[in-house]
Amino acid sequence: MTSLAEIETPAPLVDLDRLAANIDRAAAYATAHHISLRPHVKTHKSPIVASQQLDRGAVGLTCATAREVEVMAGVTDDLLFAYPPIGAPRLHHLLSVPEHVRLTVSLDSVAAIDALADAAARARRSVRVYVEIDVGMHRVGVTSAEHAVALARRVSRRKELEYAGLAFYAGHIREPVGDQDPSLARLNADLQVILDALTAAGLAPEAVSGGSTPTLWRSHELSGVTEIRPGTYVFNDRTTAELGACALSDCALTVLATVVSTAVPGQVVVDAGVKALGREPLRAIDGDGYGVVADHPDVVVARMSEEHGILDLRNTSWRPSVGELVRIIPNHVCIVVHLNDLVYGVRGDRVETTWPVEARGRHRPS
Amino acid sequence: MTSLAEIETPAPLVDLDRLAANIDRAAAYATAHHISLRPHVKTHKSPIVASQQLDRGAVGLTCATAREVEVMAGVTDDLLFAYPPIGAPRLHHLLSVPEHVRLTVSLDSVAAIDALADAAARARRSVRVYVEIDVGMHRVGVTSAEHAVALARRVSRRKELEYAGLAFYAGHIREPVGDQDPSLARLNADLQVILDALTAAGLAPEAVSGGSTPTLWRSHELSGVTEIRPGTYVFNDRTTAELGACALSDCALTVLATVVSTAVPGQVVVDAGVKALGREPLRAIDGDGYGVVADHPDVVVARMSEEHGILDLRNTSWRPSVGELVRIIPNHVCIVVHLNDLVYGVRGDRVETTWPVEARGRHRPS
Repeated sequence: MTSLAEIETPAPLVDLDRLAANIDRAAAYATAHHISLRPHVKTHKSPIVASQQLDRGAVGLTCATAREVEVMAGVTDDLLFAYPPIGAPRLHHLLSVPEHVRLTVSLDSVAAIDALADAAARARRSVRVYVEIDVGMHRVGVTSAEHAVALARRVSRRKELEYAGLAFYAGHIREPVGDQDPSLARLNADLQVILDALTAAGLAPEAVSGGSTPTLWRSHELSGVTEIRPGTYVFNDRTTAELGACALSDCALTVLATVVSTAVPGQVVVDAGVKALGREPLRAIDGDGYGVVADHPDVVVARMSEEHGILDLRNTSWRPSVGELVRIIPNHVCIVVHLNDLVYGVRGDRVETTWPVEARGRHRPS
Repeated sequence: MTSLAEIETPAPLVDLDRLAANIDRAAAYATAHHISLRPHVKTHKSPIVASQQLDRGAVGLTCATAREVEVMAGVTDDLLFAYPPIGAPRLHHLLSVPEHVRLTVSLDSVAAIDALADAAARARRSVRVYVEIDVGMHRVGVTSAEHAVALARRVSRRKELEYAGLAFYAGHIREPVGDQDPSLARLNADLQVILDALTAAGLAPEAVSGGSTPTLWRSHELSGVTEIRPGTYVFNDRTTAELGACALSDCALTVLATVVSTAVPGQVVVDAGVKALGREPLRAIDGDGYGVVADHPDVVVARMSEEHGILDLRNTSWRPSVGELVRIIPNHVCIVVHLNDLVYGVRGDRVETTWPVEARGRHRPS
């Protein structure tokens, strides 16, 4: 297959040149600032893409599911499971990773520490632990320095576990970070309180793991951060561009779609709906659409059904015909990849390669 | 495997008793009203579930993707492709269905008719056609009687095609249908205009295919409808219950999730986020959450990240612990199934069987 017209749509395309540029840009930034880059694989779920990240600057990988750990153990021996290791089936799956893999787990509860230590003992292996702290997103992570110290102490007393540092995720900082950004200053102040408390308790963290794609280029301004875990940067998406962390022309992944109906005036229907794009609003606001047409940035996917995307043509003179191919930049690329089994690697309109989304899913038919 | 505690979460569970009751209830309704039941497989994407529908009253199946057609040809010889057959790869995939399958396609454009007829000629087969009309949803379908007549005439003049009737989807009628419902009356008036025009042109439709799960139980009140294509009814979901077309206790599919963090006060975090539930708002309104806890209907999934669901505990005295299993009724079950490769069939807390979501996806790694 060499042309886009041969692909059954909808289908995810990755521009290989943009992908390479995105990987190199983040690696160069991390190198310049002496920060370890440990990309989150949730965005691509592919050992082929992960290998490119590892070959060009990444120190290891970050995962959120046991399936991701299982698959990525094939391409690195240094994995961070940045998710609470809760539940016997998840722990069993996680600790089935080959022994040569250095496994680090972030967690935020006594229950997680005890279950992980017990499972590590049964598996006769050692697991490194980051204590997860909440720096304002209010999702996971302990909310006080006292709690962080207590968990770090508990970890350091379990012989199967190695206390390795702190982890946080500043997913609440979504705005383009300005010089006088109050949320960044608050985050740094909160981080410093916890770092001081741990140091006073003799538990100064060796690693401080943070970062996200929106804050990627200001990671060096985060207090004491030694490691970052951006995921989205590898492909980028409309949201990342809207937040100012990339240009729209840095978006490597587009969804190839076909115009399937022009019967209703004022709009056309493409075959990329919720089951191809996800229903992810831009900046948490509905009404801005669910993706933008790459060659027509004034046209958005205004409404969707499962297999239908409605392109609103009221603000454009463009009038695509039934059968025309369009490429849509999705709002949230991580969701799009998760909806697919196969990705097409392209340069321009030429298909060069395909790769499976090998680490998607959890439960595979046997 | 026999207990829920052995399943790695998040995972979709289907209550087998509720599934059987849902299948039988719709079949009994269709039989009582002499309407053909042609369930849409988009909801389950499983030939195992489809076989149960066919064994208990369905006359055939409805599909929206060529992959669904390919898979469902294994369990029935009567398939409706209720999606515009646009694009050479889709047409090729579609017409690769075995010859013993009677294939009907709904469409709304001259381009679709000509491409389908040409592809059918190349494949040396005959394809039945429904002309799709828009009855108010403004998605696909021609918007005037004149246009419907013109398409029906064009279909009837192509020897590879057989004009078989009309199709519509009243997805805009979402409210519980009342006796004096104005949208139903308007729909019937619009339908009648088109039926009259077709009859006057000597193109009276043999079949009129409509219906949806929200309007399922009032299908017999739709003008001239001979066939219905509900999908969601097989599992039902929170939206269907909210619309009054089922009870919450008729929802057969729940997402099994584990409480993974209780670190942030006022909430707990479960491992079912966007990648397990989808981000489908209830009744198109955000703020009602993305699913409800089956045993605690006052607790909803209030916020989500990709792998995190935040249960808001402010309106409940329930305080689940880290590691506790919960079952979540999703807002939109068709999206949940599409996110999974495997479904667990349960009775109560006992796992009886599993089945693959065989028709999900489009592009499979070879």
